[in-house]
Amino acid sequence: MHKSIITISREYGSGGRHIGKCVADKLGIPFYDKKLITQVAKESGLDIKFVEETGEYSATDSFLYNLAISNIYPFDNIYSKDSMTLENKIYIFQAKVIKEAAEKGPCVIVGRCADYILRDRKDCLNVFIHADIEKKRERVIEYQEVNVKDVDREIRRVDKARANHYNQYTGEKWGNIKNYHLSIDSGAFGIDGSVEMICKACEL
Amino acid sequence: MHKSIITISREYGSGGRHIGKCVADKLGIPFYDKKLITQVAKESGLDIKFVEETGEYSATDSFLYNLAISNIYPFDNIYSKDSMTLENKIYIFQAKVIKEAAEKGPCVIVGRCADYILRDRKDCLNVFIHADIEKKRERVIEYQEVNVKDVDREIRRVDKARANHYNQYTGEKWGNIKNYHLSIDSGAFGIDGSVEMICKACEL
Repeated sequence: MHKSIITISREYGSGGRHIGKCVADKLGIPFYDKKLITQVAKESGLDIKFVEETGEYSATDSFLYNLAISNIYPFDNIYSKDSMTLENKIYIFQAKVIKEAAEKGPCVIVGRCADYILRDRKDCLNVFIHADIEKKRERVIEYQEVNVKDVDREIRRVDKARANHYNQYTGEKWGNIKNYHLSIDSGAFGIDGSVEMICKACEL
Repeated sequence: MHKSIITISREYGSGGRHIGKCVADKLGIPFYDKKLITQVAKESGLDIKFVEETGEYSATDSFLYNLAISNIYPFDNIYSKDSMTLENKIYIFQAKVIKEAAEKGPCVIVGRCADYILRDRKDCLNVFIHADIEKKRERVIEYQEVNVKDVDREIRRVDKARANHYNQYTGEKWGNIKNYHLSIDSGAFGIDGSVEMICKACEL
């Protein structure tokens, strides 16, 4: 298939971000995560923390509706649109930055609806990483500051927020098997195995 | 992960059956499809054509309910149960034959809820094969006796029947990303690429 832009969507605690970083390192290509957030914050003039949270976890019913009625495609004229919420503006800036990153060449992009934003390109490998609740729980407890007794609730909360954000901004269902070229259970394959599978997929 | 029993669930027209056969050939392990149907027909005394159709495409609301209320687990006492429909009896025979096949050693099993039936084993690699409608359409027209103008309806019909059958007999949702260790878009990877990915997954 020879894909060079790898987008990774992932459940919270599945290790998807780490897998993406390892894939980028192994292939010697840029990894966009914090870098992308910094760029969006710079271009929009908004606080980096706000961009980080809002660019993947907010949801607004009105975005697709806004697009549909206001005939503002392509994105170029949207920035000054006063009727746009900050959340929607961040999505627009993010889409622009993601498209520019992909234009520069091979890379790995984690989350932020990148699979949908880049849907017209033929060189994207869209990957979804999931895992069973036991593995996700272990990982979240090990790497995040989450109390053991709150861990299941936190996993549900984050995944629900990611799903809502994706569904609202794309009109598609987050985690729908049909939207990904490759879906991997990182609980079964482990981090290294998942990295190997993705690298193998890029070779084919 | 070192899995040796490979179950393949697949959308109609995705080439999943053919991929399964190629994986079995490449790994030098048995491929259960027709062989399994023949065995179920032999054990149940039912017509092979009827077993073939019913074992993957029928659905009955009452199966899980039946199991729940009649305390007939494990399966051994169920064969003589008069209240069981033929469809339910076929499922029971099929489950028995699938479990016995898995007991014999490494193999590939296509469809027939094998992933669910073998859920307690730790040596199963559960794979889902899907593809976009254009690729499925091409494949169905090339390999099946389906009229070009009826092809989309036929794809929807078969996949809906497979989904209903799976959902009713397992209580799970067919094609739910979380039920498979690996999901592959065969339209993107091709038959050979999908075979390579599955073989790679078995090595890890």
